[in-house]
Amino acid sequence: MAKKQKQFRPKARAPRGFQDRFGAEIAAEREMLARISAVYESFGFDPLETPAFEYTDALGKFLPDVDRPNAGVFSLQDDDDQWMSLRYDLTAPLARYVAEHYDALPKPFRRYAVGPVWRNEKPGPGRFRQFTQCDADTVGAPAPDADAEMCVLFAQVIEAAGVDRDDFLIRVSNRKIVDGLFERLALADDEGGETRLTVMRSMDKFDRLGEAGVRLLLGPGRKDESGDFTDGAGLADAQIDAVVGFLTSTVEGDDGATLQRLSDIVGATQSGAAGVQELVAIADQVPAAMRGAVAIDCSIIRGLEYYTGPVFEADLTFEAKDDKGRPVRLGSVGGGGRYDGLVKRFKGVEVPAVGISVGVSRLLAALALKDRAIETARGPVVVLALEKDRMADYQAMAAELRAAGVRAEVYLGGSNFAKQLKYADKRAAPVAIIQGSDEREKGEVTIKDLVLGAALSKDIEDNRAWREDQPAQFSVKRDALVQAVKETLARER
Amino acid sequence: MAKKQKQFRPKARAPRGFQDRFGAEIAAEREMLARISAVYESFGFDPLETPAFEYTDALGKFLPDVDRPNAGVFSLQDDDDQWMSLRYDLTAPLARYVAEHYDALPKPFRRYAVGPVWRNEKPGPGRFRQFTQCDADTVGAPAPDADAEMCVLFAQVIEAAGVDRDDFLIRVSNRKIVDGLFERLALADDEGGETRLTVMRSMDKFDRLGEAGVRLLLGPGRKDESGDFTDGAGLADAQIDAVVGFLTSTVEGDDGATLQRLSDIVGATQSGAAGVQELVAIADQVPAAMRGAVAIDCSIIRGLEYYTGPVFEADLTFEAKDDKGRPVRLGSVGGGGRYDGLVKRFKGVEVPAVGISVGVSRLLAALALKDRAIETARGPVVVLALEKDRMADYQAMAAELRAAGVRAEVYLGGSNFAKQLKYADKRAAPVAIIQGSDEREKGEVTIKDLVLGAALSKDIEDNRAWREDQPAQFSVKRDALVQAVKETLARER
Repeated sequence: MAKKQKQFRPKARAPRGFQDRFGAEIAAEREMLARISAVYESFGFDPLETPAFEYTDALGKFLPDVDRPNAGVFSLQDDDDQWMSLRYDLTAPLARYVAEHYDALPKPFRRYAVGPVWRNEKPGPGRFRQFTQCDADTVGAPAPDADAEMCVLFAQVIEAAGVDRDDFLIRVSNRKIVDGLFERLALADDEGGETRLTVMRSMDKFDRLGEAGVRLLLGPGRKDESGDFTDGAGLADAQIDAVVGFLTSTVEGDDGATLQRLSDIVGATQSGAAGVQELVAIADQVPAAMRGAVAIDCSIIRGLEYYTGPVFEADLTFEAKDDKGRPVRLGSVGGGGRYDGLVKRFKGVEVPAVGISVGVSRLLAALALKDRAIETARGPVVVLALEKDRMADYQAMAAELRAAGVRAEVYLGGSNFAKQLKYADKRAAPVAIIQGSDEREKGEVTIKDLVLGAALSKDIEDNRAWREDQPAQFSVKRDALVQAVKETLARER
Repeated sequence: MAKKQKQFRPKARAPRGFQDRFGAEIAAEREMLARISAVYESFGFDPLETPAFEYTDALGKFLPDVDRPNAGVFSLQDDDDQWMSLRYDLTAPLARYVAEHYDALPKPFRRYAVGPVWRNEKPGPGRFRQFTQCDADTVGAPAPDADAEMCVLFAQVIEAAGVDRDDFLIRVSNRKIVDGLFERLALADDEGGETRLTVMRSMDKFDRLGEAGVRLLLGPGRKDESGDFTDGAGLADAQIDAVVGFLTSTVEGDDGATLQRLSDIVGATQSGAAGVQELVAIADQVPAAMRGAVAIDCSIIRGLEYYTGPVFEADLTFEAKDDKGRPVRLGSVGGGGRYDGLVKRFKGVEVPAVGISVGVSRLLAALALKDRAIETARGPVVVLALEKDRMADYQAMAAELRAAGVRAEVYLGGSNFAKQLKYADKRAAPVAIIQGSDEREKGEVTIKDLVLGAALSKDIEDNRAWREDQPAQFSVKRDALVQAVKETLARER
């Protein structure tokens, strides 16, 4: 006989950088996605679901980090030797889908998509290798009409997610205007685009580092608080002045004045003039009622290289503080823009496209800071199981409660009374139902109000009178169970 | 200068065995999952979401096909050299999660999960490498109370999904009774379990092949219509009689009689007696109102090796026909059972667990055959864009409709009239809104009822009178737009 080997016991752990989520956390995200999806649908967008995998060759240049093409994704080889990768966003699969079904699709093609994406990156606090994206895109409609609609849609989506109209702003810029600026800086021919990229990255840090910091990044370079040195773009002073003038061109609350300033800076270039014209058209099409929610603001950059026209960013503008009262930077909760090269690598032709992507987990975190967290279902009413041979009776009680729209379950872990109450507590049960042999013989059930009970036990001396008025535990006839539970739950709210 | 290389153009195609889904197909599944989730929640189950990946060593023996351990999954090596696999079901991640958080969890632990799973298998018609599962499990509660509850939950879930009470049956068997049968067959010591497995597989084909076919599979083997020969289990005639007696033990509508027959066959063995006792307890706990929906039936087997006690199968029992009037086998739309070995390989101890898994895509297909397909949202009202400089007006019309709860969009693909109507048709728009310069000058809009229009154009001669009463196209004052569209939509339903 073979010698018995020691049993291998794997350690139970989620893979590095991946998270488990349970209960209210999921329910809140699900509710937010439902609200956002409802707005997308009301605008005529239909849902598209593509598989987790795409062929790696179909992902192409739409990679999350232009510095590391083909890095950053999870890939494996199929048994027919073709390489497949898990999607890292919802745009690359859209490009593949549109190219595959181009002739059959209605055009413009409006689709929204909700689902997980995967990034093979170093995880960090709050930075996971799988997270949810929620996008809407219009394919086949040129600027500026679809772009203007997208801004309005974006504002309505953020509002539907639970953010007040005064607490966010959809900022709109245009990649063509940035091109115009680069032309003025005589960077248009920058071989390989290295300097342009450095300038764009520096500009993107304007809201965090301010003018002085960005001037260093555009010029000689900058040492941060930790002592780390970031190489600068090496621009001349006149060039730096032009960039800073561009970044500070926004006149708050007056798109007309902002556009005039931008026209002064880049209007003499072909790209700049075209970009300003698109922004004018967008500003004109935003309805009066939405104007406070959408603003032309060229200090936003959006990192992705593939944008070709208008770009959008949804920013939260309210003040928020963390647990310790320190101010929290909320920043962007989504972005988007026009990318007319969407299907070019498949079909060789440009197809106009514009879209937005909502940062769902950031939005949820921000709403929690604002005490506007989405409310989720309460714990279930727990029917205690005191007599082993009465399970059918307890299940009947739970069934009656459920039929009346109340979440309810029977405790299934044995007959120990203290253990059952502890369980009800751990489940955040609002009410426990108790029927031991005494109650049963009298045809009664006892209803224990666990919310009131917890409140009373906190301050038991001062509230004696109140306590006598509102007993945390009382008995009713068996046939009055549902009514009594519903009244108790209504009181607890 | 480097020679210009020919641009690589990847072919746009979804990876082999993976599907894209769009519009109504997704909406129907989403609605069904919402209905099922609502029932799970009403029973006190909370949602758990685990990542797509698990460490491969954590998947263990819970593999879909016992013949090919470690095959059938998509795996890759992380940059720290650990192997990760995409989950192939929702049970293996539950086992890992429970083992990882065992002490902190309320016990019994009720969780449900909804999400995609991946199988690295040969795809076929209707057989995809990614599909949705929808499970509920109770961990930490021994048989039979949790099992009885699971049967009732299963029935309510299938009913909530849209199947009438008379059109399905939750069949309940018990792995211990099968063990008792094997003991009687003197197969208990079958080295490696090869013969047991063959016998179980043969038994599993009883509803499809009938008694004669199964007798061949249990004995010498069977040649099917195509001429393929399947090796038999090689049992003796007395053994085959016992197996067939077991498979035909069900007395329809009388669980008591069924259980008596089973007791006669396997009651003398220890496993058999224990199994019958559990089934008696389950039958007793099913409330009177649900008894028609849950039945003891030992002809169901459930292929998975890890079940240790009661097993369940949800079967559709109505007659269905395909497009050509041929009868369609509907069969199982879900299954489940008890698997007390859930976390054993992590923790070395048995933790009782019982669960169910609903076959969502099969249920959707079956409902469609029964003309009970879930209704989904209609196409949007399309506002035509006839004058290029009036986009803001058109968007205002669409916004008013949306504010009144009507799906609406502006056509964004140019000003060609015929193209716009073709688009509205392709989107299945119920109504098109038309305002050219004539209408605008009169302060009017034209409402084109596309549903009525399509009906009229089918039979244009006979319906002249009716047509005059209900014009498919009419004009109203601009401020009556929303009211007129709502009335038109109400008429169309």
